[in-house]
This record gives sequence, structure tokens and C-alpha cells, in this order.
Amino acid sequence: MNKIIVDCLGCDNKTAVIKGIAKALNEIDDVIIYASGDEKEIKSILHNENYDKSRLGFINAPEVITNNDSPVLAIRTKENSSLVQALQFLRNNYDVSALISAGSTGAVLCGSIIILGKEENVDRPTLVSYLPTSNNSFVCLTDCGANIDSRPQHLLEFATLANENVKKAFKIDNPRIGLLSIGSEDKKGNALTKEAFVLLKNSDLNFVGNVEPKNVLNGDVDVVVADGFYGNILLKTIESSAKTILKNILNKLYKHIPGDADSSFIKESYEECLKEIDFNSQGGAQILGIKKAVIKAHGSANEDTIVNCIKQAIKNI
Amino acid sequence: MNKIIVDCLGCDNKTAVIKGIAKALNEIDDVIIYASGDEKEIKSILHNENYDKSRLGFINAPEVITNNDSPVLAIRTKENSSLVQALQFLRNNYDVSALISAGSTGAVLCGSIIILGKEENVDRPTLVSYLPTSNNSFVCLTDCGANIDSRPQHLLEFATLANENVKKAFKIDNPRIGLLSIGSEDKKGNALTKEAFVLLKNSDLNFVGNVEPKNVLNGDVDVVVADGFYGNILLKTIESSAKTILKNILNKLYKHIPGDADSSFIKESYEECLKEIDFNSQGGAQILGIKKAVIKAHGSANEDTIVNCIKQAIKNI
Repeated sequence: MNKIIVDCLGCDNKTAVIKGIAKALNEIDDVIIYASGDEKEIKSILHNENYDKSRLGFINAPEVITNNDSPVLAIRTKENSSLVQALQFLRNNYDVSALISAGSTGAVLCGSIIILGKEENVDRPTLVSYLPTSNNSFVCLTDCGANIDSRPQHLLEFATLANENVKKAFKIDNPRIGLLSIGSEDKKGNALTKEAFVLLKNSDLNFVGNVEPKNVLNGDVDVVVADGFYGNILLKTIESSAKTILKNILNKLYKHIPGDADSSFIKESYEECLKEIDFNSQGGAQILGIKKAVIKAHGSANEDTIVNCIKQAIKNI
Repeated sequence: MNKIIVDCLGCDNKTAVIKGIAKALNEIDDVIIYASGDEKEIKSILHNENYDKSRLGFINAPEVITNNDSPVLAIRTKENSSLVQALQFLRNNYDVSALISAGSTGAVLCGSIIILGKEENVDRPTLVSYLPTSNNSFVCLTDCGANIDSRPQHLLEFATLANENVKKAFKIDNPRIGLLSIGSEDKKGNALTKEAFVLLKNSDLNFVGNVEPKNVLNGDVDVVVADGFYGNILLKTIESSAKTILKNILNKLYKHIPGDADSSFIKESYEECLKEIDFNSQGGAQILGIKKAVIKAHGSANEDTIVNCIKQAIKNI
């Protein structure tokens, strides 16, 4: 039985996160969930929900770490926060395998490193996201915002961590690793990527060279390596521009559809697309390079996000 | 009468570029165009076209600068190339106001700086693109790929140049300037943007702070400032992800439409959207900070690209 913790506080909508736990217990059989937060409040929110109560445990920790808190300071001083208690519970119980939190990214990252500790030989743990590609596959983006102003050897480290994760979680033998750049030619790039290119080329990884955004979206690689600054820009641009263009075509479709035609299929198609590009509901970003699995869900996580994050965690164990 | 040069060589499809000149002469009354390239070849391609021949001049320069040439070396040694001759003609004739080229970006940039010269007090000229926004406006992206590993003062310079251009070309009194970053809070960013933030804040510009990709797409600013490396990533990601999602929804619409319904309006809506996001046919990237106007069209420029670039050049004069 998989044992997974869900941090219920520090997110935009704790009711959605808590109800997501009940939904997950109904959809997934082989999981025990520990809800970290104010036990009374959680029970009251779940009062009218139907789920298998025997598979729900509690970590009673009513204190909240918010986005306004300094991450390091909060981890060191808010001993009774849902996040700190959850991380300590994860560290202290060998049979508990993962934590899901929709709280402050900085605090989740710092807390994971301080409380769980880095894996051996890892300098900078990395935050990775799995982006859907046009060929119905995915690409693992490392780093998607945790590491800013990385050095070339960090990019090699991100690639190595993502390589192992993709192999394990998606049963891909020899993941194709691409380096995000502004052209596919070997010499294209900035000072950072030019040095990282040489390190990746000389590594044991299946490095396929520089890739552009279109290669990422087409699924030409399994892993795309970037500094967290422009990795984050890539991630957010894909999301925003997809939403913008979908709204645009929706308006045009409603404008051009013959007056007497049934338009319900437009809404259906639009919503299917929206769901596919909604990274938020698909799961969360994962921290690689620390001693246990931690998944950072989007701050605005909804019920489905929590269900999907739990499925993602189980896949990774 | 506006006098504008079109470089006909070094692009993917010179026939399209040359036919674009005839199309432009038909669509735009107040322009004289000088076609730079192999005069005989240009005349032969235009043989069957109808246009006002009295408004077409030639710069006979049959040599080609390709993407494989070293830009600086090519500018210095290929004296009879269509690009070098075009730039010299632009420099030497005060009444000729702009050059449009779909040739090698590197060569167009180097050539512009070497032959035309930088404007007074400009250290690094910048390449800017105008991106369409969801509120039917545009945003000027500076830099979109010419300047890699910029220093903070360069970002201030890009902003200053783009500010002047937007004021002039779009009659906006006090353009809103945003700094591309990974969060809208003042302290978010990397080492480069944090320093540039202070410089922009202390400048006379209407600096509105850090912006994320969604702000760029929503048209929350008139100018977005970035180093050319991730400016280029932003540009290419918007283009690729819009195309990817459009294909995706098109497939779903055809899948879900009732069998007996007329589907022609779907194709119509799709093509309208595609046209709006096709930066290629909308115009070109402009080099700011040099002594005359130079517009770099996409290598795969088609007839419409040339027409739109000429309109863009006239707007900027």
C-alpha cells in the first residue's frame, strides 16, 4: 500500500485540496493518505463526503506557511506548520513515500532540502515539469524555476537527475536529452549553454544537441534542459499562449458558425483542449535530487490536481 | 514619395520576394522600390507581372550572402552582394529611407552596423519584433535575438530605443515598459534582470515593473525588455505553441462535428487565426539604434511578408 502525505495548507483553496483527498481515495485503491493541516477543519470539510475513512490519516499541524513568508525562516521557525510537520513525518517514516503540497514553492523547495536532505553527490536539486507534446507524449522540463543563474555543471546535473526520473517513471531506456537554445546548430546559444553543451556532449547521456521551443512541443526529446529562469519563461509562455489562441479561435468559430447549426461540439472540443493544456490539473512539478519524492502542485490546485498528483507520485515510487 | 530598397537574395524563396515587390507597388501608391540582386533575373521573374514600372529601380548586385557565410567576413569581402550594395545605396542616398532584407540575420545586423553605423550614444543596436496581443493590439519585444549575454545597461538601452520607436510608429505618448521576468514582484528575476530593474526604475521611462509571459500576451505593456536569448525563446515559444494548439483543436472539431453539418466555417476560423499568429507574413523584425531603418524579414518570407514589411517601413519613417 502506498502511503502519501497531502499538505492541506498554504494553497489558494484548501477546501478543494481537502476534497481532492476524498476523491483520490475513491479513485485509487492502493493508497493511504495522511492529510497535514488542522485536523478538526479537515474533518469538518470532509463531513459530508463519502470515502474509505480507514485509509485516511492525519498530521495535526494547524500553522500555515504563506507566500509572504521568507522560505528559509519559515521552515526554521514554523515548527507546527502543515509543511514542516509533513516533511518531518515523511523523513521519519520509511514506509511513507511522498509528499504533495500546493503551498509556497520556495518553502517546499527549502523545506525539502533542509528537512529531507539532498541525495548523495547532488549539488542543486531541480524542479521538473512534464509538458504534454503534440505527439501525445510528454517532455520533462528541467529546471522549471527553482534554480536561477545556474552554472554549466548544474545544467549537467539537472539532465542527469531528469534522465533517471524519466527512465524510472516512464520506462524509457535511453531518454533523448536536448539543451534549450535559440537554434539547433551546435554553436548557437549563450555563454551558459555553450559550456553546458560541451559537458553534456562529453557525458554518458543520450544528448541530442540544442533544441528550440518547437522541438520541445513536438516531442523531439524526452528531457529538455534549461536554467530555471528561461525554463520558467518557456513553461509559462506555452501555457499562456495556448490559452490565448484557444479563446481566439473560439470567438471566430462562434462568429462563423451558420445560425441554425448545433454549436455544442465547439464547446466540447474547446474544453478537451483546455484540459489537455491545463498543467495545473494534470499534476505537479517534482523536486529531483532529494531523498524522498516531493511534488509541488500549483497554488491554485483543484480536486483533480490532487488526484493527479497522487497518481503521479505512485508512478514515481 | 517613400524610397525603399528590397534585398532579393539570401532568402529561402527569392521568387516570392521579387513577386512581393510587384504586389507592393500595386497595393501602395506612395512608394518607389529599389530591387537589389541580379537585375536580369529580377526582370525575368517580373516579366508577366502587372505593376507600375516607373516606380521600380534596380541595384544590380548578383552576389549572394548565405546563412553559411561568416557575417562579418561576408560584409567585408562580398562587395558585390545584394546586401552590401543595398546598404551602401541606403547610406549614400539621403532620400532613400529603408532597407528590407530576408537574408542572413547575422549579416543584416553586422552590415547595418558596419556600413550604416550606429546612432550617436548607442552601444548595442537591438532587433525588435511586434507581437500581436489578445486585446487586438501589439507589444514590442526588445531584444528578440540579436544580443545574447547582455549586461544590465544594455537592457536599459533596448528599452530606450524601443520606447522611441513605439512613440513614433504607433503614436503612443508614454509607452508602458515591462521587464520580462519569472514573477511580477519587484524582487523576482535573475542577476541580470535584478540589476536592470533598478536602472529602469531610475530612468525617465514609464517603467511598470516585471512582467510574465501572460502579461506580454494580454497586452499589459507596450514594450517588453529581455536579453536576446530568452527574448528569442519567448518569441519562438509563442509561435510554436499557438500553432500546436490550433492543430489540436482542429482535430477535435472535425472529430466532434455532427456528420451532416457544414464544416467549412471551421477551416475559415482556423485560417484566420493562423494568419494572425503568422509573424512571418505580418512583417519583419526591425533593427533599432542604427542610422537608417532596416527591417529583417523572416528567411521564408512570402509575397505578403514583403508587402507588409514595406508598409511597416513607411509607418516608421
